[in-house]
Amino acid sequence: MNFSSKLLEDAVNEFSKLPGVGQKTALRLVLHLLNKEQEEVELFGNALIRLRKEIKHCQVCHNISDNQLCSICAAAKREKEVICVVEDTRDVMAIENTGQYFGLYHVLGGLISPMDGIGPSDLFIDSLVQRVATTPVKEVILALSATMEGDTTLFYLYKRLKDFQIPITTIARGIAFGGELEYADEITLGRSIVTRVPYQTSLIK
Amino acid sequence: MNFSSKLLEDAVNEFSKLPGVGQKTALRLVLHLLNKEQEEVELFGNALIRLRKEIKHCQVCHNISDNQLCSICAAAKREKEVICVVEDTRDVMAIENTGQYFGLYHVLGGLISPMDGIGPSDLFIDSLVQRVATTPVKEVILALSATMEGDTTLFYLYKRLKDFQIPITTIARGIAFGGELEYADEITLGRSIVTRVPYQTSLIK
Repeated sequence: MNFSSKLLEDAVNEFSKLPGVGQKTALRLVLHLLNKEQEEVELFGNALIRLRKEIKHCQVCHNISDNQLCSICAAAKREKEVICVVEDTRDVMAIENTGQYFGLYHVLGGLISPMDGIGPSDLFIDSLVQRVATTPVKEVILALSATMEGDTTLFYLYKRLKDFQIPITTIARGIAFGGELEYADEITLGRSIVTRVPYQTSLIK
Repeated sequence: MNFSSKLLEDAVNEFSKLPGVGQKTALRLVLHLLNKEQEEVELFGNALIRLRKEIKHCQVCHNISDNQLCSICAAAKREKEVICVVEDTRDVMAIENTGQYFGLYHVLGGLISPMDGIGPSDLFIDSLVQRVATTPVKEVILALSATMEGDTTLFYLYKRLKDFQIPITTIARGIAFGGELEYADEITLGRSIVTRVPYQTSLIK
């Protein structure tokens, strides 16, 4: 692209480094910002700079946090003896949005993926094992994606945690609510028949 | 969404103000930036802030520029007596990318659109008329989009400029290169027959 301005070119290049943003989209976004008030653009730029500079990770669960201890770990009302292990912050937010879970979390920061060069030592797995070893824990819930990397990590975590003699559970897999049987893939459908559960009216709202 | 951090929430909210960026995309982009080095994020934020603060518009053609006079208006080698009128900076970049035009530009800053409340006085039309009146101009090329707003603006500009007795041209409309006749819309195809041109081998590269 031929830019008439170095400032414009810099801004477009920075934007197009973002995942899924090409040069044309970047230009569209930058021209949009140019039409905004100066204070608005400063708010935007500074929000990003402050985020990267001041953000902390919770010392206990490694979730993104404004303080040394995240709001979930610091809350008085949570069940402190249940730990739900997730891949990243987005999963914490997704589970919190359900309003069905009241325990604590442990954010691994990724999944074991030899293809991408990510091994167990790159993730917060040792600190999970230490947490289970040093604090009273009643249950560890492994809530990882149903992918190759998720299953690998699941198996590795199980091996590391099984000697502590505490219940290790995973989230239920099956047909999604609203999902139609004929469109379900055969692995999901097959497993959901094998792992069928007693009909419970108490769960119906 | 339940955010575990106010800083994170601020950054996501700022990002989701951009056109075409929802909360989920914003969160994905923000978490991407969180994984970058602090200097990189500062570069990004500051590029946007500097852009908005320091960018200028060329005093002659109103194109986005780093200085009072844009690089095209300031260039010695351009044909200064030909003015190509376009809607915005993106159109200047598109025409510059063709490498086929060597005159100057005039950026209107939009198109006349009564539906959006944009009238002639909201655009740089008076300054175009003044430019034509006060500097030697051999030709005005109107390169506007082939839309309702483009045609309205075209007609208005023609009325304002016709008394100066200089050639006023518009870019050629017709079947695009690589376009197949059977898929062309009937207006374009009909007009391209009515406005047919002599076959010129000199234009074939």
